[in-house]
Amino acid sequence: MRYGYFGSMKAKPGQRDQVVKLLLRSAEGLSTAGCHHYVIGVSDDDEQTIWVNEVWDTREAHDASLRLPETRAAIAEAMPLLTGEFTSREITVLGGLGLPPE
Amino acid sequence: MRYGYFGSMKAKPGQRDQVVKLLLRSAEGLSTAGCHHYVIGVSDDDEQTIWVNEVWDTREAHDASLRLPETRAAIAEAMPLLTGEFTSREITVLGGLGLPPE
Repeated sequence: MRYGYFGSMKAKPGQRDQVVKLLLRSAEGLSTAGCHHYVIGVSDDDEQTIWVNEVWDTREAHDASLRLPETRAAIAEAMPLLTGEFTSREITVLGGLGLPPE
Repeated sequence: MRYGYFGSMKAKPGQRDQVVKLLLRSAEGLSTAGCHHYVIGVSDDDEQTIWVNEVWDTREAHDASLRLPETRAAIAEAMPLLTGEFTSREITVLGGLGLPPE
């Protein structure tokens, strides 16, 4: 069953755009790691929060991606720009539109 | 700029699977209405909540989809199965993986 990780992170004031850049850069390499969706968004009424919605082949593929050198480098670069406030929810993805057949 | 709608709804006890079926059925027709992602998921630790993450070409395409006869029929069918508790967040999608080029 596909694994979804729906979360948010909060950037320090003025750092949101830089964090978005880092996230977009890391997204590029994830398709070969079993990632189908990695959607990054912001809200007009919140200048610090960044939302990230991910859909992976499996939870294991997601967890393994966190150990990739490029992911670790992006996390290390982003962490000082973040307040440390995160939300996250792990989801079993049941289907929908925009995903290749299982 | 693409429009994201990240939300959840709560089904009455025992009705979650039926609501998921209705949502999956309505997802099928949305690609021609400007919808890129319509991901439906549930969580192991919550037997009533259903998460829906949508990415649309525009906010207008999303709003227009709510007026489609098939969407209205699905909403009418689902509403009696729901508790009325919803969460939602509107997002400006900045990019990521799993979306066609703009």
